[in-house]
Amino acid sequence: MTSARWLDDEEQRSWRTFGLATRLLLDRIERELQEAAGMPPTYYELLVLLSEAPDRTMRMSELARWTHSKPSRITHAIAKLEQAGWVRREHLASDRRGWVTVLTGEGLSALQAAAPRHVASVRTHLIDVLSPEQIRQLGDISETLLKHLLPDD
Amino acid sequence: MTSARWLDDEEQRSWRTFGLATRLLLDRIERELQEAAGMPPTYYELLVLLSEAPDRTMRMSELARWTHSKPSRITHAIAKLEQAGWVRREHLASDRRGWVTVLTGEGLSALQAAAPRHVASVRTHLIDVLSPEQIRQLGDISETLLKHLLPDD
Repeated sequence: MTSARWLDDEEQRSWRTFGLATRLLLDRIERELQEAAGMPPTYYELLVLLSEAPDRTMRMSELARWTHSKPSRITHAIAKLEQAGWVRREHLASDRRGWVTVLTGEGLSALQAAAPRHVASVRTHLIDVLSPEQIRQLGDISETLLKHLLPDD
Repeated sequence: MTSARWLDDEEQRSWRTFGLATRLLLDRIERELQEAAGMPPTYYELLVLLSEAPDRTMRMSELARWTHSKPSRITHAIAKLEQAGWVRREHLASDRRGWVTVLTGEGLSALQAAAPRHVASVRTHLIDVLSPEQIRQLGDISETLLKHLLPDD
């Protein structure tokens, strides 16, 4: 094995504080969304995607691709959303491959009720804590990381 | 309810790319540590803390405080590490409150075997992807977030 190049002090500081801050931040936003709307961030994200899609309808494979999630994770989440009455599955007569997921009126209402409190939570713990310059830097850093993690996108 | 102030385009970009990049990055580093060393990041972090402590010994409450974790999470993790033979519990005769967790020789070896590959993983997916300027920015942003999330620290 080749010897590892260890992290210097600045690299160590950045990685350790990033790891801790991220875990605490995402836990906090998740807890507040759960308390305010009874749903985890994964479900919220799926409702947002469906609400923005034509006819509020998407295939499972599209939902997996857009969220960069494993199909099994999406299948599980959609089953839960269906139980809650927030989405329904429909068979497309025009397409033999065809089951799609449709956002229901009830699902749209749940999303509209959750959104203001979720946005307030993101604002309170992330956006309003940083300067506009830091918000821009964080966006650039995240895009750089995504280019490395998802080279084919 | 007061109306929510929505995110503008730059804020939205920063939050969405940050959320996705962070999830993908931490999943990747976790998977690689699990493959290389058979342990999740939580266990690795506990072994590092113990290895740096006087006599490689810490109380459960100290481990919880340093990792900013719930005591139940630490209790569970320490039980698993004990099963693996990487730590042992000891009663301090000098202290009536007194159970402590001690890193074993086997635990130290496991940490030393895992460390080079974990560092290489952090380097490959985070440190070497960013410029030195971005590493500094990410450290500053993370410290700003931690000051908000942990005001009493």
